[in-house]
Amino acid sequence: MTSLANFMSDNAAAPCPEVLAAITAAAPAQNAGYDGDDWSRRLDPLFGQLFGRECVALPVSTGTAANALALACLVPAWGAVACHTEAHIHVDECGAPEFYTGGAKLLLCPGDHGKLTPAGLDKALASHRGDVHQVQLGALSITQATECGTVYSVAEVAALTAHAAARGWRVHMDGARFANAVAALGCDAAAMVAGVDALSFGCIKNGGMTAEALVLFDTELGDQLRWRRKRAGQMPSKGRFNAAQIIAMVENDVWLRNARAANAGAQALAEAAASRLLHPVEANEVFVQLNPGEPERLREQGFLFYDWGDAGSNEARLVVSWDTPPAQIEALARALAQG
Amino acid sequence: MTSLANFMSDNAAAPCPEVLAAITAAAPAQNAGYDGDDWSRRLDPLFGQLFGRECVALPVSTGTAANALALACLVPAWGAVACHTEAHIHVDECGAPEFYTGGAKLLLCPGDHGKLTPAGLDKALASHRGDVHQVQLGALSITQATECGTVYSVAEVAALTAHAAARGWRVHMDGARFANAVAALGCDAAAMVAGVDALSFGCIKNGGMTAEALVLFDTELGDQLRWRRKRAGQMPSKGRFNAAQIIAMVENDVWLRNARAANAGAQALAEAAASRLLHPVEANEVFVQLNPGEPERLREQGFLFYDWGDAGSNEARLVVSWDTPPAQIEALARALAQG
Amino acid sequence: MTSLANFMSDNAAAPCPEVLAAITAAAPAQNAGYDGDDWSRRLDPLFGQLFGRECVALPVSTGTAANALALACLVPAWGAVACHTEAHIHVDECGAPEFYTGGAKLLLCPGDHGKLTPAGLDKALASHRGDVHQVQLGALSITQATECGTVYSVAEVAALTAHAAARGWRVHMDGARFANAVAALGCDAAAMVAGVDALSFGCIKNGGMTAEALVLFDTELGDQLRWRRKRAGQMPSKGRFNAAQIIAMVENDVWLRNARAANAGAQALAEAAASRLLHPVEANEVFVQLNPGEPERLREQGFLFYDWGDAGSNEARLVVSWDTPPAQIEALARALAQG
Amino acid sequence: MTSLANFMSDNAAAPCPEVLAAITAAAPAQNAGYDGDDWSRRLDPLFGQLFGRECVALPVSTGTAANALALACLVPAWGAVACHTEAHIHVDECGAPEFYTGGAKLLLCPGDHGKLTPAGLDKALASHRGDVHQVQLGALSITQATECGTVYSVAEVAALTAHAAARGWRVHMDGARFANAVAALGCDAAAMVAGVDALSFGCIKNGGMTAEALVLFDTELGDQLRWRRKRAGQMPSKGRFNAAQIIAMVENDVWLRNARAANAGAQALAEAAASRLLHPVEANEVFVQLNPGEPERLREQGFLFYDWGDAGSNEARLVVSWDTPPAQIEALARALAQG
Repeated sequence: MTSLANFMSDNAAAPCPEVLAAITAAAPAQNAGYDGDDWSRRLDPLFGQLFGRECVALPVSTGTAANALALACLVPAWGAVACHTEAHIHVDECGAPEFYTGGAKLLLCPGDHGKLTPAGLDKALASHRGDVHQVQLGALSITQATECGTVYSVAEVAALTAHAAARGWRVHMDGARFANAVAALGCDAAAMVAGVDALSFGCIKNGGMTAEALVLFDTELGDQLRWRRKRAGQMPSKGRFNAAQIIAMVENDVWLRNARAANAGAQALAEAAASRLLHPVEANEVFVQLNPGEPERLREQGFLFYDWGDAGSNEARLVVSWDTPPAQIEALARALAQG
Repeated sequence: MTSLANFMSDNAAAPCPEVLAAITAAAPAQNAGYDGDDWSRRLDPLFGQLFGRECVALPVSTGTAANALALACLVPAWGAVACHTEAHIHVDECGAPEFYTGGAKLLLCPGDHGKLTPAGLDKALASHRGDVHQVQLGALSITQATECGTVYSVAEVAALTAHAAARGWRVHMDGARFANAVAALGCDAAAMVAGVDALSFGCIKNGGMTAEALVLFDTELGDQLRWRRKRAGQMPSKGRFNAAQIIAMVENDVWLRNARAANAGAQALAEAAASRLLHPVEANEVFVQLNPGEPERLREQGFLFYDWGDAGSNEARLVVSWDTPPAQIEALARALAQG
Repeated sequence: MTSLANFMSDNAAAPCPEVLAAITAAAPAQNAGYDGDDWSRRLDPLFGQLFGRECVALPVSTGTAANALALACLVPAWGAVACHTEAHIHVDECGAPEFYTGGAKLLLCPGDHGKLTPAGLDKALASHRGDVHQVQLGALSITQATECGTVYSVAEVAALTAHAAARGWRVHMDGARFANAVAALGCDAAAMVAGVDALSFGCIKNGGMTAEALVLFDTELGDQLRWRRKRAGQMPSKGRFNAAQIIAMVENDVWLRNARAANAGAQALAEAAASRLLHPVEANEVFVQLNPGEPERLREQGFLFYDWGDAGSNEARLVVSWDTPPAQIEALARALAQG
Repeated sequence: MTSLANFMSDNAAAPCPEVLAAITAAAPAQNAGYDGDDWSRRLDPLFGQLFGRECVALPVSTGTAANALALACLVPAWGAVACHTEAHIHVDECGAPEFYTGGAKLLLCPGDHGKLTPAGLDKALASHRGDVHQVQLGALSITQATECGTVYSVAEVAALTAHAAARGWRVHMDGARFANAVAALGCDAAAMVAGVDALSFGCIKNGGMTAEALVLFDTELGDQLRWRRKRAGQMPSKGRFNAAQIIAMVENDVWLRNARAANAGAQALAEAAASRLLHPVEANEVFVQLNPGEPERLREQGFLFYDWGDAGSNEARLVVSWDTPPAQIEALARALAQG
């Protein structure tokens, strides 16, 4: 398969060396299982330091679990979550939010390039009355970076969280590619989550292996999360291996280093296809309008990627990973430049 | 901590070398995520060969998830599962079976030394009518090895599965320590599960790291399982790392080798405390009636273990792992012999 | 309150005389409770005769329960139901479908005047892939008469049910105002439900009191419905009172007589406001574009009704019940004619 | 059927005249549906006066719904409810508590004659640890009168509610036959529920028709209850008919009058079978050890009743309703006296 260049997703990438080393370091027998080991007990202070405020941080096995557990802690079964029409929690999690919340609803709001705005929320939700015959709107979920490869600025997030706070909504951030967003903006991670109640801190796509972190900034929800996580089968008996991976990602800014590499690769592709980008390229995903016949030509050259949009639209999604070989990126950029 | 000897649980043990090697081998970037990689696609035939019949085998992140997903595939929300009063699914999973099934009930049946019998089931369930006012009894769940460290013989399992089949019940086997049971009996693994519909094949306690296998012998349930698993957040994007661990455990009978080591250690302890065992020692767990003051004396010597039974009863549970140092076992055996 | 004329909803109307008489007739003590009485046992054949095919018919206490139970029988927890953007099941049931199904999703499809079309479904659902990462589209729910007071013709329903059948979807019909639709069309009731799997047969808004009927044409789902209904607390111990109401509605075409009266009243209003109707008036609801100041003037004259649409839009919904006094209808028609 | 005498259950009895009159009085068209009518708005103050403290009271369609909604308001999905081994919520509701709570568990506690005691709770729950691996014990549910036809004294209830309060548990009372208990004791209804958080106030078995009342004494749970009730399909559009029935039962102590009649009938039977009662007869249910052949003889004489206990045990349950004809009671008493 060495002749193939995979731009399908960042979820087939390698774990980064620090993560592999952490697994090895955690291998010897310990005295405590579940969350009682030395690694697991470091997560709260580690994220507390990263984000500059107290938090509860727990590993889970997938981003879907992180998102669904977060939402279940934020809204009751008769609640509703406002999110983007293309939000991963709506489109790609087989109803996990509905399962974990006990049947809460996602209320879909459109927005250009995958981004919500306060005005867009107002318009989409104008007809929602909120009386006893309707679900109770109780949270906003933002994806950062978005499903369209764009990034909310710190000010844009702040506008949304202020909008939510004014309505009594809690805020969840689906950060499957949070690292790419922070790396792209070069901003303070703490500023990015200032108004956020629960963050799905993505590791796996960014050089991790089998663990994501769920970070709750409302620490009063900590016990609820622990119970929900256990009964969801998300509390592993050798918890140290997941905690250790997460620590390896956060320490020494490995998460930002990996994300910068992926973002840079996406920028190279974006420059090569600048005239036909479907969305601004701000993280590690590139959405391109290909020409007729171009998808086939690219695949013949060994490039793997997903068709996007409607059938026959010749739209493509190109994802760069932290470890995508530069030669592959350069080759794809050249191919795109030729059209 | 080197002076401590941990007999608390097998869930703080090290992963075995084969599992660690498998992680390393799976590390390089691949072309497919989720279950599309080369490792994941090998699980069905691997377990099909082990058990001599067609099956669907999928990794999940915990034994709790394996059990709860299995039960959800076997009984509807208005169903019921007969299980032992001390079954892990009832006692130690924070309601995971109820969560995953949508509210099915566990009907508790007593039995000596953690083991169910057809007669015991009949007696415990005699008053269950099964009309529309009651949940519908649709499955039996057996733990093998049991929560008391005992092992059902192949004939005992067959009697239970025949009992279930005659009543139209499906059969789930919680095999968190399935390896210890098969190793103890020296039996054919296929014979052990001949009447079983769903097996939670435990790896983590037996030298694994972050993955258990759920094996369905009713392959028509495969699609349902895949959807349930996805919406439970149990379908990891880098699925190869979990699949690779499981393969490493099954290939070359590593699972049996590890289990034999743990069982042998438990036998050594059992011999030393032969006169005061609370249950026959047939796998890797030893339940002992300690003498007054003995728990404190053992702990002073560095032995870690759980008190068991009622407060002040001086009962103890001692668990031996695949990698418990022989010197620690010998030391504990000596200590127990002194009483 | 005699000076007020209520056009808010048909759910504050009186029960019709036949329903009250049925309650009285069922009052004396019987020999069987739950569904064992003489009235309850008549429902299956009664609806079987009405619709010309075998069915299972059970009373429930609300239309919400009928809809939610029906959907729960048609799609699994990981399923999805296509419905109109303004469907009652989405907008006005506080998440009951999600609760009863265990978290299935409603996929919203727009359509003029509250009506779905095969082409509209195709367009709205074009991006739904149906792989394991997504919920599985398994049913279509149609409201007849619609939330906009329009009525699908028999041919329109047949086109939708054929579309569903071709995709393997089951079909639910929310018939809270089914009687108004059938009465408006003057069609055969059997023809209307020829491709339908589950019908919420509305009684309460149409002269009933405390019972709706849920009719399943797929009789293999009967047991499932009975269990789900019991565990939902929808199987009353004195079931005969609900069954008797439903029988009174169906016998002698009382349901059609009542619906015709309500429809005729709506037609009278529609003629008076013909130039400013927001939707065709085909059942017993009239949606009108009022003039500035007109809502206030109408209310000063004692007419009660709901504002509709966005705040300040001066849109109104006027609902006529089976028992709305003709004098009130005439008075409102006169007032509307004046603008 | 006039020759049959029905002692099977109180759920096939007639509604009492006051309830039928209330239906008629509520029949004329009103201005408001759902809970907005004049009857529905009277329930809170009516029960507030009856019980001497503020409360939220809402009609539901069955006792099962009342119990399940109450428990769902008192414990989370990861919670547990302690109840008697024979509690109706465990035995006869097809898993409704599990459905409504989202999977909470019932922890079963034995007790003589259907009654729980603080010591019995302590013993049965001794092994429940309550750590994160287990469900969180959060409520106690008491049935008054019990499933064995016995009645807790006010002091016995107070001991149980104090026991619960000391452990932070909420208290639910399943009062399907609450009237029979209060009538039997001749006590103050307010005293009976002094430590209770949620009461299922039974009406249907005691002369009602289609409505039970759920009374929450923790009024902060009121909104939650309203949302849960709506999404459960338990908020009927013509809510006045259920509210009116409940008012008719409570006003003028009709509920106590009816219960006294039923209790007196049970006492007459109890005297006739005094030497062979299986439980003390304190409400309107009589559990008798019949002689071999006696069940058949009684049935030949036209007496209808349920066999109880194990098959062939000749145990019987005899239930007297508020309207059981005295002549039938006398005839059964004579028959029992003959053995």
